[in-house]
Amino acid sequence: MSDSSLDQLSVNTIRTLSMDAVEAAKSGHPGMPMGMADAAYVLWTKFLRHNPKNPGWFNRDRFVLSAGHGSMLLYSLLHLTGYDLPLEELKNFRQLGSKTPGHPEFGITPGVETSTGPLGQGFSTGVGMAMAEAHLAARFNPFSPGLVDHHTYAIVSDGDLMEGVTHEAASLAGHLKLGKLIYLYDSNNITIDGSTELAFTEDVAQRFEAYGWHVLDVDGHNRSQVETAIKKSKKIINKPSLIICHTHIGYGSPNKQGSEASHGAPLGEEELRLTKIKLGWNPDHHFHIPDEVSVHFRSAEKSGEKLEKEWNEKVVQFRKEHGEVAALFDKMLTRALPSDFNEILPFFEADEKGLATRKASQQVLDSFADQIPQLIGGSADLRASNLTGLKDKGEFQHGSYESQNINYGVREHAMGAALNGIALHGGLIPYGGTFLIFSDYCRPAIRIAALSKIPSIFVFTHDSIGLGEDGPTHQPVEHLASLRAMPNLMVLRPADANETAWAWKAALENTEGPTLLALTRQSLPVFKRTDSTHASNVEKGAYIFKEAAGGKPKVILIGTGSEVSLVSEAADKLNDEGVAARVVSMPSWELFSRQPEKYRNEVLPPEVTNRISVEAAVTFGWERWIGPDGVAMGVDRFGESAPYKDIFNHLGLTVDRIVEKAKKLV
Amino acid sequence: MSDSSLDQLSVNTIRTLSMDAVEAAKSGHPGMPMGMADAAYVLWTKFLRHNPKNPGWFNRDRFVLSAGHGSMLLYSLLHLTGYDLPLEELKNFRQLGSKTPGHPEFGITPGVETSTGPLGQGFSTGVGMAMAEAHLAARFNPFSPGLVDHHTYAIVSDGDLMEGVTHEAASLAGHLKLGKLIYLYDSNNITIDGSTELAFTEDVAQRFEAYGWHVLDVDGHNRSQVETAIKKSKKIINKPSLIICHTHIGYGSPNKQGSEASHGAPLGEEELRLTKIKLGWNPDHHFHIPDEVSVHFRSAEKSGEKLEKEWNEKVVQFRKEHGEVAALFDKMLTRALPSDFNEILPFFEADEKGLATRKASQQVLDSFADQIPQLIGGSADLRASNLTGLKDKGEFQHGSYESQNINYGVREHAMGAALNGIALHGGLIPYGGTFLIFSDYCRPAIRIAALSKIPSIFVFTHDSIGLGEDGPTHQPVEHLASLRAMPNLMVLRPADANETAWAWKAALENTEGPTLLALTRQSLPVFKRTDSTHASNVEKGAYIFKEAAGGKPKVILIGTGSEVSLVSEAADKLNDEGVAARVVSMPSWELFSRQPEKYRNEVLPPEVTNRISVEAAVTFGWERWIGPDGVAMGVDRFGESAPYKDIFNHLGLTVDRIVEKAKKLV
Repeated sequence: MSDSSLDQLSVNTIRTLSMDAVEAAKSGHPGMPMGMADAAYVLWTKFLRHNPKNPGWFNRDRFVLSAGHGSMLLYSLLHLTGYDLPLEELKNFRQLGSKTPGHPEFGITPGVETSTGPLGQGFSTGVGMAMAEAHLAARFNPFSPGLVDHHTYAIVSDGDLMEGVTHEAASLAGHLKLGKLIYLYDSNNITIDGSTELAFTEDVAQRFEAYGWHVLDVDGHNRSQVETAIKKSKKIINKPSLIICHTHIGYGSPNKQGSEASHGAPLGEEELRLTKIKLGWNPDHHFHIPDEVSVHFRSAEKSGEKLEKEWNEKVVQFRKEHGEVAALFDKMLTRALPSDFNEILPFFEADEKGLATRKASQQVLDSFADQIPQLIGGSADLRASNLTGLKDKGEFQHGSYESQNINYGVREHAMGAALNGIALHGGLIPYGGTFLIFSDYCRPAIRIAALSKIPSIFVFTHDSIGLGEDGPTHQPVEHLASLRAMPNLMVLRPADANETAWAWKAALENTEGPTLLALTRQSLPVFKRTDSTHASNVEKGAYIFKEAAGGKPKVILIGTGSEVSLVSEAADKLNDEGVAARVVSMPSWELFSRQPEKYRNEVLPPEVTNRISVEAAVTFGWERWIGPDGVAMGVDRFGESAPYKDIFNHLGLTVDRIVEKAKKLV
Repeated sequence: MSDSSLDQLSVNTIRTLSMDAVEAAKSGHPGMPMGMADAAYVLWTKFLRHNPKNPGWFNRDRFVLSAGHGSMLLYSLLHLTGYDLPLEELKNFRQLGSKTPGHPEFGITPGVETSTGPLGQGFSTGVGMAMAEAHLAARFNPFSPGLVDHHTYAIVSDGDLMEGVTHEAASLAGHLKLGKLIYLYDSNNITIDGSTELAFTEDVAQRFEAYGWHVLDVDGHNRSQVETAIKKSKKIINKPSLIICHTHIGYGSPNKQGSEASHGAPLGEEELRLTKIKLGWNPDHHFHIPDEVSVHFRSAEKSGEKLEKEWNEKVVQFRKEHGEVAALFDKMLTRALPSDFNEILPFFEADEKGLATRKASQQVLDSFADQIPQLIGGSADLRASNLTGLKDKGEFQHGSYESQNINYGVREHAMGAALNGIALHGGLIPYGGTFLIFSDYCRPAIRIAALSKIPSIFVFTHDSIGLGEDGPTHQPVEHLASLRAMPNLMVLRPADANETAWAWKAALENTEGPTLLALTRQSLPVFKRTDSTHASNVEKGAYIFKEAAGGKPKVILIGTGSEVSLVSEAADKLNDEGVAARVVSMPSWELFSRQPEKYRNEVLPPEVTNRISVEAAVTFGWERWIGPDGVAMGVDRFGESAPYKDIFNHLGLTVDRIVEKAKKLV
């Protein structure tokens, strides 16, 4: 069999597997895999450096299917090249418990680098992967050339390119001149609602050139054109590449090729048969893989093994020649953290005047900078406000990729996705800052992190009406609740500088998902603490911050973040006046929920039903902690533009009001 | 005084007012108003058609300050041209209760067309305004040339252009060839963190040309260049225009011009003095407006009055000549709704098999199409899934602007902002659809609507794990809670086709903020209803959907949306088995919360503490309704990819489980 016909047979195997799986599932998207089978085949068989037997091999090329609805394209390739994804799984496409969910999910399927489907996420996450590669290469390749040296590829769609997040990510990638980013754009002129003429007529090539990308244009069904284009793109080392592949969606389908009818629904039994005939396939064959095709694809196993072996040898050599640097490399790859945070976390002396938790956070980062080499920081153009800089760690730019401070620009969404990409890449612990209000701008990326258990760290400052004069457009009120509602996102709102330090520790140690630090703009007192009220209690989510006079509380005041100082002062007054009041600081609902019931009942004894929560945010959800007799004090409306103390007074978040409410309750 | 020096004096008045207000407030952004004073002056005095004495005049040019942090530029212009914004308000910049909040807020300050500050929103909202103008012009100008004929102007910043939403909106505006959209881009090369060289080096002109915009480049301090550019732009009628104004941020400040130091902080007393001297101002004058400048700007009052008078005469003529069409125009401008919805809302016969609420919604829209002429619909490339088409109302495209179906493309965020812009423009009732999961993609726009009381309608389908095979990336679980947490957003999740009809009525009648309809992908039974369980009860937010056997409930089962049929079936079983169970359908928390306590206690009697809520979403917040003894059944995790019935079973949302939990509770 000639190479060319083997190529053709291989491509059609991808197509028919995809069609069959969608048909069996009675739902899914056959058109995209059919249209992009040629280009993906070229990429996967001629370029992609990976080891199917070890999907976690560090120096592999990353491949992201940003057009996640075409998941069967990826599942077909993973199965064919020898990943641990048996044919049975393809037959179980979109079924409960299968490794082949409707859209690719990181952690479910070996070889899936990130969860995609929500359009634009894959594109933008890939940019983060390429940033991680560039950074690690700059740090380590001077000692061991080629140690970190891989490309990040993606297949992206019309839909991806319409999403705002890809504008942000593409502009950033162009600015950073990420030459090892190569994206194949499936330009099929069809979206779910029909022709792209309906809504998408921009000149994509010109747009990406404006971003500083290298843009090529090919017939996506002409495999040699695709091959040449990828080769060329690999040679352009100071620009990301976009290869526009003109394709026909549903390629091969006599009646649905080039139509939205093949986009998001099975072809149907009859059309499936016709398509198979047209592709030279036996229409009675289902999930059929010709032997020679199988052998051909499986050569990836051997070549992958070889690639990894060579790399392993390089690492051994590296360790020999540069023991110390290699030890650092090894450490970074395992996400090893300092063994004793007590030695590293700054301690803040009690201080009535105190400092903003964002400032405390900066001091924590200052002390982390030299101790935690995996950290790579950044901000969406608010570094001086978020205080997220890593001291003396330079600016991550083209020519200084080894630096650890990233300027994301005013691109919160791309930053969120890039954090995910950096974390997924491995070797680094990424964090990024913006105002808490702008969590809304990157929420889809935060969700991907939560869903896929990606340990991205979001440092979100200016966390309430306490930001003052910027006003309601900038004052988060519903955000804490709306973020706490997201499964697997750990939200931490520390009450003072020392809680901030321990919140950072909790963030670094949370490897099972993202963490969000909500920090103040305004100064907060640094509290005097005892052994029992040590700030390490942050790790329990909530704790008795101040016991009631006599030890038997008649009322419990619960605060988070900046409001702990308010409830603390109120408790002092109450205790003075004979109303035994306990103060609970609750920096994290999620962490507290995870504590044993016994502990939770110690902090919030069921018999003490007089409870008041105070948080400068909507009271939504606080019933969980205060019960039916409790009072939730908060801000169930949008804020105001004024000096922050005026706003707190205006909205009734004052010591006197808390005291008043508590007395009424008791 | 020569014109030129009067011009200069006027521009410097804008600058000094802005500087003084920021200094007085001890916070704010002086640099942008100082930099863009020239260009804004030209626009406002030579082009803007408005009537300061009637900011609501319908045919006025719209002006949006997308770079909302430069609010003092706008407040200065509003004060100077004679809007009801006394100098006292400028002196009270950023103070509690003033009309001059830190960022412009619609509804607070006369002449502010939309709330801005969250970058990108103003830019994209303006696109919606231009769409509304194009549509109404196409519908009415054939009868009365020039009846609807105005431009939409904006000042946009580097930050705006970095945000993804402006990519979406700009690409859409270019596609739609919105020629009456003219944006001045304040290209000052400075963002908060420093030079745009740090993160923003794309070729903006080329990018916008790729979108199909007309792009010009001028010295933003050369007023005649600006004037010529606006003139040229007005002549380009089939492309939106971007006028790149190269400016110096903090223009006039000897030590801070061109530096980020003037971006987000007062100049400081000394620099303020130096700047005033440099600008030829008396440094001891504060909030000083030279008389001749005052007179000059105030000419806008007279010219505005004249413009409106001419237009009013045109309307009178229109009414005379085209009585019926003019009546339609008048009706649309007042947002008048049908007097009797009972005659318009479709009635769905009880039907076990039923239909998806998204399908019911389509039928509602079908019956609205000819009855509610203000409707203008759309979807973010999911019309066939959201079922949001307006039958026989054509496709809104260049050349068919009179049509009422908008193809937003895969641009949820721009859609959200455009809905706001269309609603703010007036004359139309906009709605837009996508999947509920993608509410995350447009959340910042939803928030602007909630904050600014904009009655945009969001039709979000595929509202739970019930969407099935598309899996966790597409299954909203935290979204209902996170949206309910947002102040002033009305969330409605109807339980069947008839509730859907009444939910639409509630949406149309909610003029004080946005409404979100959460609709199913999957079929739901159409319930048999009595007078007391009439679907009009939707308007109360919650109601007794099925009374317990004997009328005295031992347990109350509360459901929303698709889960009402589950709890209803469970209640039947319980009542059969002697456990008196009431069913409450709760389509809207917000509406129920607004009912009198008496009614709320009738539906959820305080003495009946055995309560179970069932909702295929996170249980976050349900304690509010079920109390401490209640059980919240839901999905406190991400979903699964599988046929939806398998997922409901797998996650325990079944009739049997509800029965079991209820028995245990009782």
